[in-house]
Amino acid sequence: MLPLPLEQLAEQLRLLPGVGKKTALKYAFRVLELSDEQAQNLLATIAEVRSNIVSCVICHHISESDLCSICANTSRDDSQICVVEDARDVLAFERAGSFKGLYHVLGGVISPMDGIGPDKLNISSLLGRLDEVSEIIVATNPTVEGEATAMYLTKLLAPRGITVTRLAYGLPAGSDLEYADEVTLARAIEGRRSL
Amino acid sequence: MLPLPLEQLAEQLRLLPGVGKKTALKYAFRVLELSDEQAQNLLATIAEVRSNIVSCVICHHISESDLCSICANTSRDDSQICVVEDARDVLAFERAGSFKGLYHVLGGVISPMDGIGPDKLNISSLLGRLDEVSEIIVATNPTVEGEATAMYLTKLLAPRGITVTRLAYGLPAGSDLEYADEVTLARAIEGRRSL
Repeated sequence: MLPLPLEQLAEQLRLLPGVGKKTALKYAFRVLELSDEQAQNLLATIAEVRSNIVSCVICHHISESDLCSICANTSRDDSQICVVEDARDVLAFERAGSFKGLYHVLGGVISPMDGIGPDKLNISSLLGRLDEVSEIIVATNPTVEGEATAMYLTKLLAPRGITVTRLAYGLPAGSDLEYADEVTLARAIEGRRSL
Repeated sequence: MLPLPLEQLAEQLRLLPGVGKKTALKYAFRVLELSDEQAQNLLATIAEVRSNIVSCVICHHISESDLCSICANTSRDDSQICVVEDARDVLAFERAGSFKGLYHVLGGVISPMDGIGPDKLNISSLLGRLDEVSEIIVATNPTVEGEATAMYLTKLLAPRGITVTRLAYGLPAGSDLEYADEVTLARAIEGRRSL
């Protein structure tokens, strides 16, 4: 019933995160209804994103040139490297604005279930950056895989005399104790500090 | 902070229905992460959808040729035309499979608030199709605009000696009386039938 190209487009739009069959079809119809100018712009921008955005050769963050704007910025503190899972995490830290060191984007986390071992991540390039570094802040997500990756990095880096730290666990700002889950609450007590 | 092309792509992805700033950015990152083959396929399919899918010259349903597969099918009952808002509604009826007549896609509903008058809809082409037709089923959505459009069409068509009908209102199949809204319940009582 559905014209084949439209069905194919819907199928391909399911590659977008969290998009199922119905939403993909809704999106495909919208693409069909775009004005010619909007459609041309969309095609051109997708092509531009694909060809002009590369990985920084040092930290693997997204960049429009070989060196990302953070690695190229000489006023950043190069004694600290914050290790994150992906480029979005770098953007989140930069929005917060409190970290003045450098980053290293792993490109994922260790996940044996998905066949992702340490060799698939940007770890060897991290080891090549340690000369000036005194502290590595492991900022992987507080998930099972994120924890395993943090553990792996700690074992790898600690023998080299580098301080390895992890982000603080606890209650998110503005949250309500009553609705905090047990694990978060337990960790908030564990990590309590004197006032 | 965000590379410009990525920001532009996120901005353009907000044209998709129900997609806000955060979701658009998530989608833009996914587009960046696609394999070259996936990205090429996506670009090609968008272009194909845009160039190969046209409106049926008779009923305005989406089609890959001048005549859609429904209008081209001589075994359909040409004495009944089901008037719908858009192509998705045709697909919904065809999935249900109980209607054997023809369709007419209005391309929207009358909505003075959005500046859409009857002249912006495919109504004159509907008037040109009435020769063999004995019944017009107005299947616009049960919204204020859908009702207004149904009313407009009834006033236009009834004087021409054509039976104009409207879809039945009532409880959706498999639903629970307890959770039905007042309007639906009132209409279900109004439209009650003898058993």
